[in-house]
Amino acid sequence: MEKRLLLNCDMGESFGLWNMGLDDQVMPLVDMANIACGFHASDPVTMTRTVLMAKHAGTLIGAHPSYPDLVGFGRRSLQCHPQEVVSMIQYQIGALDGIARAHGMKISYVKPHGAMYNDMMKDHGILRAVLEGVTQYDRSLPLMLMATADNSAVRAIAEEFDALLLFEAFADRAYDERGFLVPRSVAGSVYHDEARILQQSLQLAKEGVVMTLEGTQVTLEADTLCVHGDNAESVQAVQHIRAALDKLYAGKEA
Amino acid sequence: MEKRLLLNCDMGESFGLWNMGLDDQVMPLVDMANIACGFHASDPVTMTRTVLMAKHAGTLIGAHPSYPDLVGFGRRSLQCHPQEVVSMIQYQIGALDGIARAHGMKISYVKPHGAMYNDMMKDHGILRAVLEGVTQYDRSLPLMLMATADNSAVRAIAEEFDALLLFEAFADRAYDERGFLVPRSVAGSVYHDEARILQQSLQLAKEGVVMTLEGTQVTLEADTLCVHGDNAESVQAVQHIRAALDKLYAGKEA
Amino acid sequence: MEKRLLLNCDMGESFGLWNMGLDDQVMPLVDMANIACGFHASDPVTMTRTVLMAKHAGTLIGAHPSYPDLVGFGRRSLQCHPQEVVSMIQYQIGALDGIARAHGMKISYVKPHGAMYNDMMKDHGILRAVLEGVTQYDRSLPLMLMATADNSAVRAIAEEFDALLLFEAFADRAYDERGFLVPRSVAGSVYHDEARILQQSLQLAKEGVVMTLEGTQVTLEADTLCVHGDNAESVQAVQHIRAALDKLYAGKEA
Amino acid sequence: MEKRLLLNCDMGESFGLWNMGLDDQVMPLVDMANIACGFHASDPVTMTRTVLMAKHAGTLIGAHPSYPDLVGFGRRSLQCHPQEVVSMIQYQIGALDGIARAHGMKISYVKPHGAMYNDMMKDHGILRAVLEGVTQYDRSLPLMLMATADNSAVRAIAEEFDALLLFEAFADRAYDERGFLVPRSVAGSVYHDEARILQQSLQLAKEGVVMTLEGTQVTLEADTLCVHGDNAESVQAVQHIRAALDKLYAGKEA
Repeated sequence: MEKRLLLNCDMGESFGLWNMGLDDQVMPLVDMANIACGFHASDPVTMTRTVLMAKHAGTLIGAHPSYPDLVGFGRRSLQCHPQEVVSMIQYQIGALDGIARAHGMKISYVKPHGAMYNDMMKDHGILRAVLEGVTQYDRSLPLMLMATADNSAVRAIAEEFDALLLFEAFADRAYDERGFLVPRSVAGSVYHDEARILQQSLQLAKEGVVMTLEGTQVTLEADTLCVHGDNAESVQAVQHIRAALDKLYAGKEA
Repeated sequence: MEKRLLLNCDMGESFGLWNMGLDDQVMPLVDMANIACGFHASDPVTMTRTVLMAKHAGTLIGAHPSYPDLVGFGRRSLQCHPQEVVSMIQYQIGALDGIARAHGMKISYVKPHGAMYNDMMKDHGILRAVLEGVTQYDRSLPLMLMATADNSAVRAIAEEFDALLLFEAFADRAYDERGFLVPRSVAGSVYHDEARILQQSLQLAKEGVVMTLEGTQVTLEADTLCVHGDNAESVQAVQHIRAALDKLYAGKEA
Repeated sequence: MEKRLLLNCDMGESFGLWNMGLDDQVMPLVDMANIACGFHASDPVTMTRTVLMAKHAGTLIGAHPSYPDLVGFGRRSLQCHPQEVVSMIQYQIGALDGIARAHGMKISYVKPHGAMYNDMMKDHGILRAVLEGVTQYDRSLPLMLMATADNSAVRAIAEEFDALLLFEAFADRAYDERGFLVPRSVAGSVYHDEARILQQSLQLAKEGVVMTLEGTQVTLEADTLCVHGDNAESVQAVQHIRAALDKLYAGKEA
Repeated sequence: MEKRLLLNCDMGESFGLWNMGLDDQVMPLVDMANIACGFHASDPVTMTRTVLMAKHAGTLIGAHPSYPDLVGFGRRSLQCHPQEVVSMIQYQIGALDGIARAHGMKISYVKPHGAMYNDMMKDHGILRAVLEGVTQYDRSLPLMLMATADNSAVRAIAEEFDALLLFEAFADRAYDERGFLVPRSVAGSVYHDEARILQQSLQLAKEGVVMTLEGTQVTLEADTLCVHGDNAESVQAVQHIRAALDKLYAGKEA
């Protein structure tokens, strides 16, 4: 059976009375819901609601752990000792898994959030701490991280922990020739044109490549594509990506 | 085989750099460690350290969930909606279980902390929320609550949830004729005399009764006895209770 | 000069990335902004932005302190010791005043939020703690509380502290014959009809009375009317109340 | 009148039920109490108790603001936007000042804590944010920072804000030839020998110099000396430094 590009989306990022994201609209459109675990967003009641929403939609759930920073939404790097990262990862995976088990669900993967995700991609000490946290909890849980043109260094580190990996690409971000995201500070680094977003999504699904900002092609071995459910525009983009992928895979099945 | 009175103790109640309790001294003396889950005390690193200490000592671990109130140490009642209690219980059980599983351990029971414990004993709505929280997570996990002379109402509610219960008594607290604790505001309600504490512990273990403050006897069907590891005096009392119980049960085994 | 009914509104209740309320629309329409102080909502950056918005609009600012409960938005009663209330009030007033002073503003009054407000109206021990907190900080700062038909008990307690009071009424809530709010659980207790809201506002401004749910009149000596800026409908209601009051007072000035 | 070397000490670093530091013993021995403001330690009740202790002892109080990180005790760098630092500084100064004013006290200076202190010394963007925070609040409040052999860069930045500075030296830390602290990772960087600590304190007070680890002298223009009240040993060292300074200045007064 052929491998399909799965859609993943950050969800469950409301907090108490404060709402964020159009989870109810985007949940049925994606394959994987990255659910906040209370450190950058969410709370036990919101997590319960989000798990039930995923269960109803048949969406896989993943833990989306973060540095402890609600007011900064987990976007600010916090210089932690690796053992702190190991323990905070396990606490958060366990907390979400606790709520999931209570409702007959189970976590399928782990994707760190925000600054922890960025730090993990830049700092092998943090990556090792994340891998230790995940594999000690459950070696069968894959860690989701960013696909680049050359994933060999990351793969080698994952092997130290006998860890499974999932690589993700981004539908709406410009890439450079190494397969890294062009920084947001650079003009043109974030695509707002839906046609452009759809094109990048389909090219990844069909050919496993993206066009760089310079117009060259770069290969990205991506298992999943990160999409967003923040607002009506992004949900609409997800609808179109979903429809296009469904059509693509239906054609192949035929 | 005869039923034995197990010793349980609140542990893992340090927070970040702030230390609380002589956990390393009391852990080898007790059978069950009630481990704080980050809502009234503890943090992921402290939880990891406490789980490893229990593993090394061969002590059973239980989740010790609380209302979210670090500064008040979970001792202040917080008027929550029952669904909030259900979800916060599952979050905390899961978080501790996550850290426990990562180290080859597993939670054996749940004992709510402080104001949540008191509210659960007074308010059947909170008790039902706690039971729903625990049994949805894992029906084989018993809930630990306070033994009184008549546990029938509590047992009836537990049956609604097909829940297992563990009843605990207190070594150092005076009881009234209904088997309730005499409020701390009453003179003589807390025993500081070690001989008195030891006597109450042994009488519970041997006969399943305690003497009330009025000098009468009241029956308490207790599975476990709550002891404290706060300071050198309380640890010494635990040492003596441990030795006395070990002697008692060794004699019976002979 | 004639006394005017001032409009007050809870504001600055966003938190980090989470938005709440249409503050920019409602700020120019009201006389008094009750600004959250970080315990039930807001954070230092949001408080700075809100203070600057009030400064630009010429709106008076008041501290809106709460129990420490972000996830519950300060709506859950927390059984605190009165000294805890005194200190947490002063911490929050000071924090907002610190940000206000940094921008050439000054707090003009204090209005407790949510559960602390309700507890203060029901429990004289909490009311005394709030009054001690406010008057120790600055005896010239009035405390805003709920007007009822008989404010004499509250006034007597305020006199113990030589405290100033501001009484508020509600534009959109039904009253009973003692001048208490009809509980939200009762049908008809919250007015959604803008004409009804406007009528109650004007009757209070002109005659100092409200119609009860039973159709009788009750006198309310209110200094200020609480309005809401949560959504487009409530902002529109505030616009109409503002216009009606402006017309009323313009007529009187002529 | 001659300038005297004042002793400053971090205090009020308990949190809720967790105790830290021998504040009651060290408070009468020092001139300046750096009081935690609830972001890395302390809470409103602890702040009240600490302010009253300082009032009773006649000790000056300073705000000791931090990044928001209770579990990490403010020792972990958090990559904040400068505006976040400005606002969080003003929030914390105001909060402590609120409690101080309620008890007839007033803040005399500001000393950032832990990672914020270190970041301020390394990163001029953070230093400017701290200076903006302090001077917007009250231009007459000096900022306390670390004395080095060459304070000119720091002084130049302070002049941009028309800010007052206080320079501190450390009694128990080894210095290098630029007047920087030798990192804790280097052997011999922290003095545990009380005679050595006393000698460094007196040499600073008398001659304004310290001996480097290499045995050379370096000039430090320090207004104040940082001492510690963590445990019995450090309190004893403070007693001896206090006595030696008192003797030194008494002799000069004669």
